Amino acid sequence: MVERLGDDVFGRDDDTLPSVVGRALAQRGLTLATGESCTGGLLGGAFTEIPGSSAWYRGGVVAYADDLKTALAGVPIATLAADGAVSAATAAALAHGVRERCGTDLGVGVTGIAGPGGATPGKPVGLVYLAVADEAGDRSSVLDSPGSRGLIRARAVTAALDLVRRRLMGTG
Amino acid sequence: MVERLGDDVFGRDDDTLPSVVGRALAQRGLTLATGESCTGGLLGGAFTEIPGSSAWYRGGVVAYADDLKTALAGVPIATLAADGAVSAATAAALAHGVRERCGTDLGVGVTGIAGPGGATPGKPVGLVYLAVADEAGDRSSVLDSPGSRGLIRARAVTAALDLVRRRLMGTG
Repeated sequence: MVERLGDDVFGRDDDTLPSVVGRALAQRGLTLATGESCTGGLLGGAFTEIPGSSAWYRGGVVAYADDLKTALAGVPIATLAADGAVSAATAAALAHGVRERCGTDLGVGVTGIAGPGGATPGKPVGLVYLAVADEAGDRSSVLDSPGSRGLIRARAVTAALDLVRRRLMGTG
Repeated sequence: MVERLGDDVFGRDDDTLPSVVGRALAQRGLTLATGESCTGGLLGGAFTEIPGSSAWYRGGVVAYADDLKTALAGVPIATLAADGAVSAATAAALAHGVRERCGTDLGVGVTGIAGPGGATPGKPVGLVYLAVADEAGDRSSVLDSPGSRGLIRARAVTAALDLVRRRLMGTG
């Protein structure tokens, strides 16, 4: 049934995105790390809501201040200067950085503008870049939608979970 | 009114623990970092639910795997070996470690057993150690109460927020 509906359907019954991603990681013997800015730790919080998540979730960093994106996750200063903290390049650098520093198979990066302040020309509130990195490289996605600070952050967590899921399923 | 009720009352009207702590930090010009194990990022997530939290919250680490408590937050291997990852000493080391690595005035550490697995003799599910560190040293607290994984983690976040609040108010 799930198979027939295609890969937009992630599970059935009591499945949640974190539980599905966790099961896929465990089945493959893979580990994961998170590098978060605008979500402030909520993505790590979502992964670790699953009992036994320590088998595949190792940890990560919350790099809220820009200099900590460099200090804690190795995001190049040149990337922050050229593309900005809210950019696809910074999301990818966060993903690669936490993957390396946490010694995991996969790394996930999230950076965006949760609002209500912080918008700049060309970078509105609600703009969020996500990336997942593995040994083969990285895949990114972007969100650009209105909403409250809470909604934007919750959507970012969901989108990050789904990005990892699709990468593991080989469809993203 | 709040003053008359004493320092167990943290606010009024729309105040939340994160908003009260954030306001107290901003008023004092202080910054904060988080070092989390069992809460997996939820404490950072709670602080950053406040718009403008980047003025006082700089970031932190999620050190779920024990070796990352050392690699990301500088928790001494000797502390982990002697006291265990779930201990007052490790909570304090997490707090001091993120304070130093994130360059903040305060650091908060949380480590515990969220369950349902992970209990060991003398360390039951629900045991959570919390610490806040500043230039003067550190203060710790401990939770030991039953409940679901979600409830234990939510209580740990609340207790960590309150530990910081009391430290800032000079009553903890």
